[in-house]
Amino acid sequence: MNLLPTLFALMALLCGKSNAAVKPNIVIIYSDDLGYGDLGCYGSPVIRTPHLDRMAAEGLRFTDFYSGAEVCTPSRAALLTGRYALRSGMASPRRVLFPESKGGLPPAEVTLAESLITAGYATAHIGKWHLGIHEGSRPQDQGFDETFGLPYSNDMDARADLPKDAVGSPNPPADGWNVPLLHNGKIIEQPAGQSTLTRRYTEHAVNFIRAKKDAPFFLYFAHTFPHVPMFASPAFKGKSRAGIYGDAVEELDWSVGEVLAALRTQNLAENTLVVFSSDNGPWLTMGNQGGSAGLLKDGKGSTWEGGMRVPGIAWMPGKIAPGVTTQMASVLDLYPTALALAGASPPKDTPLDGTDLRPLLFEQKSLPERPFFYYRGKQIFACRLGEWKAHFQTQGGFGSPKAEAHEPPLLFHLGLDPSEKRSVTADHPEVLARIQKAVETHMATVNAVPQQLD
Amino acid sequence: MNLLPTLFALMALLCGKSNAAVKPNIVIIYSDDLGYGDLGCYGSPVIRTPHLDRMAAEGLRFTDFYSGAEVCTPSRAALLTGRYALRSGMASPRRVLFPESKGGLPPAEVTLAESLITAGYATAHIGKWHLGIHEGSRPQDQGFDETFGLPYSNDMDARADLPKDAVGSPNPPADGWNVPLLHNGKIIEQPAGQSTLTRRYTEHAVNFIRAKKDAPFFLYFAHTFPHVPMFASPAFKGKSRAGIYGDAVEELDWSVGEVLAALRTQNLAENTLVVFSSDNGPWLTMGNQGGSAGLLKDGKGSTWEGGMRVPGIAWMPGKIAPGVTTQMASVLDLYPTALALAGASPPKDTPLDGTDLRPLLFEQKSLPERPFFYYRGKQIFACRLGEWKAHFQTQGGFGSPKAEAHEPPLLFHLGLDPSEKRSVTADHPEVLARIQKAVETHMATVNAVPQQLD
Repeated sequence: MNLLPTLFALMALLCGKSNAAVKPNIVIIYSDDLGYGDLGCYGSPVIRTPHLDRMAAEGLRFTDFYSGAEVCTPSRAALLTGRYALRSGMASPRRVLFPESKGGLPPAEVTLAESLITAGYATAHIGKWHLGIHEGSRPQDQGFDETFGLPYSNDMDARADLPKDAVGSPNPPADGWNVPLLHNGKIIEQPAGQSTLTRRYTEHAVNFIRAKKDAPFFLYFAHTFPHVPMFASPAFKGKSRAGIYGDAVEELDWSVGEVLAALRTQNLAENTLVVFSSDNGPWLTMGNQGGSAGLLKDGKGSTWEGGMRVPGIAWMPGKIAPGVTTQMASVLDLYPTALALAGASPPKDTPLDGTDLRPLLFEQKSLPERPFFYYRGKQIFACRLGEWKAHFQTQGGFGSPKAEAHEPPLLFHLGLDPSEKRSVTADHPEVLARIQKAVETHMATVNAVPQQLD
Repeated sequence: MNLLPTLFALMALLCGKSNAAVKPNIVIIYSDDLGYGDLGCYGSPVIRTPHLDRMAAEGLRFTDFYSGAEVCTPSRAALLTGRYALRSGMASPRRVLFPESKGGLPPAEVTLAESLITAGYATAHIGKWHLGIHEGSRPQDQGFDETFGLPYSNDMDARADLPKDAVGSPNPPADGWNVPLLHNGKIIEQPAGQSTLTRRYTEHAVNFIRAKKDAPFFLYFAHTFPHVPMFASPAFKGKSRAGIYGDAVEELDWSVGEVLAALRTQNLAENTLVVFSSDNGPWLTMGNQGGSAGLLKDGKGSTWEGGMRVPGIAWMPGKIAPGVTTQMASVLDLYPTALALAGASPPKDTPLDGTDLRPLLFEQKSLPERPFFYYRGKQIFACRLGEWKAHFQTQGGFGSPKAEAHEPPLLFHLGLDPSEKRSVTADHPEVLARIQKAVETHMATVNAVPQQLD
């Protein structure tokens, strides 16, 4: 008697359902201003992140994962459109949207949520938005069935009499910023109780997962922290070695653990791709409240590696083999990857800038060599191709002196010199030529569009 | 019928022997100039170290582990005597021993090997020595039954016509240095074939473990690499992202894997404490051949964290629970820990500077707060107590301008500010007072002894 069919039927029963016919769920957990060196699995000696370390140990940890831009708004635009922010008008010397900004992510942009909705996905945005507060640009206008969170950064709309240094304080005033908390477009609290946000975001995320366990879903979970002003709930405040910054990251780590636990409990883990990353590097000028880019140079706002190379972890137990990859990838790749997993069509007439990561994620295959462009505002400051990175201009993070142009460009080998200390331009003219050609090819595809941030 | 006794007897049979009555073996694997940021498990994006990462995942990884000194000779003296090198005369402004040096580790010093021999241990030194080449100071004079390796650094006794920059070359000449390879006191090869050293050291280590599997043993395995000039065997050369430095570290990682595999194969893993560390930080002035201290400041030769905080991993499957600890420890602690495990007596009238780590290793308990002293040559440049570190003087690594004295001292909180960027002296006079008292208490115990390195 052949027991195998019975065994498989039993296993399917035990697992709740057969996953074969169900489209994979997509969860993107996005932290704000978290640095490359701020997680245990990326070498932080001062912040304990057991849940993210476990996620990394069970999944694929990227050593060379990039955000789509050097600051918040364009980085999020790049993630949700799968294209560099300049293409959607979301890149500008002004850098990000402010509460008084008139612009926002144009309605014509087909976000990842919109693409997935057409493929039958339930969608939710939880956390920070920062892609516009006006009709057409809001989460509910851009493909999200549900939305719960802040419209912009937690340091915006500051109280008029707030001292300037309050934003970087280890103990900022709870009523210092008037940022509202919205639920499906309605203000439910103002000012938002910042020390409760991570906990409440997490509850919403877990509830969404539970409610949608029988449908494919896309959860875009964009944390408010560790962006200044820094808050943590009483359960985490004062608990880390690294002060309130470490407390906030450790609470974020707890949140990741809750989301993964919910997926496991609902028997969804093997059918859910979870990606963890950050919108840009650490805000170093915030001092003790500013995190660390580890061995990388500079931080948020800069196109040195520390400004744009961020933690990147992909998790899908049983589908993604545990490991570490040194292959280059970026948040731009998540759009085509998610679409391919969902069997959804890419938006018409809008070429995506990323690459489908499935061969790497599921088959440990090498991805084709392709350039990565480090935009600062509307300009390409640097370009990476393979191990090589050329800087056409350099500038530090916020508040640093104006950009310095380099002719010839600086050239670094990121394998031999990950901290970008030793330019070797003179030794490799042929590499520089290839990179310059890649930039030209890219620029030829960028069309003028109305700018949203000016 | 009670099957338990039978089951235990069967398990004991399967395991080869009962471990209860056997003294634990001690293996110390010591790398040379390996930086805090050079292993995967410490966040290196460019060097792959799967064996050390696995060792860390199975064992206890220290975020705050220190070498005994800022350079090679005093660091090794501290490890093997359990005391700061000044106490044995092995600290000097000249920093290390050279082939022409007259001094060496005094015969009166009771090394860890000597203490363990009296407790019935078989002992072996494999790799670099660098504690003296004259009678009384050599490995065979200092408690090691067997010895195989180099008497000093692999960059010493350079060929007269060798260009100065050859030592830091990515492709150094094989015959550039006349350093001999010794086996039990006899020169067996000169110049030593440097690209074969890691492989041959490893063979000797594995053979020693096999030969001594029925006796308690102490193996002191002090690698030659990644000290410049940088060599790797053909199996590793050209294989890493990080050039020959990465190749050398990846071969070292392979070697660690071989040693741990040998212990597993001989059923010794659960009865062997293995500690991996480095003698000091990375030699940063060697550029691409210089490694990385990760987020820590400066490197070899300096008393900034990057000069003395190093990887530290303790492994003893089934006895040491997997984890990461932020508790401070140092190679000075290995002497008292090993003696306690061996049931051996400490040397008479020579107070040790370290602390028995067993409560931390085996019971996850906190160690008592105690100061750590950062010596540069004969002087205490800095002192750590808890999270606080005071710098009385600062200076960069080799070749940096002369020391700068600080009055009042600089004061850093290593939890909030692990990269030592923001001195907060003015805010914490009481901390500074406690640290200064700890230095005074320590100095009162340091007696004048003949200096060996001058």
